[in-house]
Amino acid sequence: MAVIYERAVRFEEIDAAGIMFFARYFHWCHEAMERFFDELPGGYVELIMKKRLGFPAVHMTGDWKTPLRYGDAVRIETSVVTIGTTSTTFRYVFTKIPDGAYVAKFEHVTVFSNLDAMTKRPIPTDVRALLEAHRTSG
Amino acid sequence: MAVIYERAVRFEEIDAAGIMFFARYFHWCHEAMERFFDELPGGYVELIMKKRLGFPAVHMTGDWKTPLRYGDAVRIETSVVTIGTTSTTFRYVFTKIPDGAYVAKFEHVTVFSNLDAMTKRPIPTDVRALLEAHRTSG
Amino acid sequence: MAVIYERAVRFEEIDAAGIMFFARYFHWCHEAMERFFDELPGGYVELIMKKRLGFPAVHMTGDWKTPLRYGDAVRIETSVVTIGTTSTTFRYVFTKIPDGAYVAKFEHVTVFSNLDAMTKRPIPTDVRALLEAHRTSG
Amino acid sequence: MAVIYERAVRFEEIDAAGIMFFARYFHWCHEAMERFFDELPGGYVELIMKKRLGFPAVHMTGDWKTPLRYGDAVRIETSVVTIGTTSTTFRYVFTKIPDGAYVAKFEHVTVFSNLDAMTKRPIPTDVRALLEAHRTSG
Repeated sequence: MAVIYERAVRFEEIDAAGIMFFARYFHWCHEAMERFFDELPGGYVELIMKKRLGFPAVHMTGDWKTPLRYGDAVRIETSVVTIGTTSTTFRYVFTKIPDGAYVAKFEHVTVFSNLDAMTKRPIPTDVRALLEAHRTSG
Repeated sequence: MAVIYERAVRFEEIDAAGIMFFARYFHWCHEAMERFFDELPGGYVELIMKKRLGFPAVHMTGDWKTPLRYGDAVRIETSVVTIGTTSTTFRYVFTKIPDGAYVAKFEHVTVFSNLDAMTKRPIPTDVRALLEAHRTSG
Repeated sequence: MAVIYERAVRFEEIDAAGIMFFARYFHWCHEAMERFFDELPGGYVELIMKKRLGFPAVHMTGDWKTPLRYGDAVRIETSVVTIGTTSTTFRYVFTKIPDGAYVAKFEHVTVFSNLDAMTKRPIPTDVRALLEAHRTSG
Repeated sequence: MAVIYERAVRFEEIDAAGIMFFARYFHWCHEAMERFFDELPGGYVELIMKKRLGFPAVHMTGDWKTPLRYGDAVRIETSVVTIGTTSTTFRYVFTKIPDGAYVAKFEHVTVFSNLDAMTKRPIPTDVRALLEAHRTSG
C-alpha cells in the first residue's frame, strides 16, 4: 500500500516558463521518500544522522504528463516496486488534487549504502519490513 | 559534437548525507541546456521570454556512478540523441575534472511547445539546425 | 496575534558545513508568509496569479542565534510590525520545537505592487484587515 | 578593492511573480563569497572540508532596488566592511550588466567558527590578510 504525501506548488518553484521547474519534481520525490520512512523508529533522520546509512540513487526514470502551476496541489503515492539484497526501487505517482488527474511518475533505483564509506550494505531487517509493507502489486 | 559546460559543486548543493543532492544533477542538466542554446541568436532567454517557446520534459532517465562532494568539479557534455518533428532527446554526460572519471549520465526527452498554450509545435529551422549540429553519433 | 507555521529541516537543506544553509531561512520566511495569507479568500495564489498583486521585498534584516541540523523542527511566528499606505513590515520569529529555543528572527519590508508594471499600489481593504489582525504589539 | 563575480539569472530562479525570487539573492551572495576566497590556497573548500572552519552568519541586511528578470546579468562586488577578532562583515553590491544600474546591496555579519563544535575562533593570519586586502574604504 502506498504512503501518501500531499503538497502544493510553492511560489518559488515556478520557472521562467511559468510552470513548475522539471527538476523540482525530484525534490518532491525525496520529500515523499522522507515521509515514507516516518513509520521507522527515528525515521529517515536517524538512519542518515546516527547510523550513517542511506539510499543513494543509481538510476531514475521520470515521465511528465501535465504541467503544474502556482497554486496546484499534488498527491504523491510512494510505493516500492522491487527489493533486492541492497537495492530498492521506489515509485512515486503524482496526481492532482482534487480531480486526480495524472501529473507525473518516477521510478528511483537506490543502493542501500554506508554513507561514509559509500559502500553498499544489505538492507537491515526493520528497513526491509517497511519496504515490504509498501510493495506494490502493479 | 557535444557542447561543454563545466561547473564546481557549490557549498549549498551538499545534502545531509554529505554528497551532492541527487535532484541537483537535474538542475545542472538544465544549466548545461541553457548554455547549449548560447549559439542561437538571443539564446534560450529570447526563445522563452520573447517567443514563449520551449522544451518541456516528457521523459527523463538518469544514471549515477560516482558521488560528488563539495569542491568537486564536473565537465558536462551536452549532445542531441534524436530529433523528431516536435521532440528532442538531449544527453548529458558528467565526468570529473581533471581525471575524467565517469560521474553520471542523463537523457532528457522534450517536446517543443508553445509555453502559453502548452501545445506542441514543430521545431523551427534555426533551432533544428543547432540541434543537428550537436547530434551525437553514439 | 502571530500566524504559526511549523516545519522540519529537510535532507537537502543542509550545506557543506553540516548545518541549514543560511539562505534557506529566507525561503522559510516566504513559506510562512504564504501561509499567513491563507485566511484571505483565494490566498496568496489568487493575489499573485489572478490580481497580479504582491509584496516585493525592499529591505530585510536577519539575525541567527542557533544553527539548525537535519531533523530539527522549527516553529515560525509571522506577524506584522508596521503597515503604511503601500509598505508592510513582516516579522518572522523562529524557535525550535519542542524546547522553544530561539533560533533566528527576520524583518521583511515589502511594498505592495502591481507585479506586471512593478509600481506600488495602496494596500486594499481586505488585505489591510488581515495585516492589522496580525499586528504585533511588541 | 572589491572582488568581482558576474552571473546571469537562471531559468529556474524566477518565481510565480515573474521576477528573481528574493531569497535567491542570498544564494548569490554566498556564491560571491566562495569566489572571494579563491585567492586563499585551497580556497573556501579547503577551509570548510579540511580545516572545518567557516563563517556562519549572525546578522544580515538586504536592500533591493530593481527587480531582476530571466536573462538579466549582474555584477557583484564583494568587499569587507569590518574585521574583528572573530567577526567579519562582508558587503555585496549588485549592479546590472551592462548599464551598471543599482540592483541590490547586502551586508553579512559572520563569526569565524569551528564548524564541528560551532564555537567561535580567532581569524587566522592568512584569512585575515585576504580580508584586509579587500577592505572597503567607503
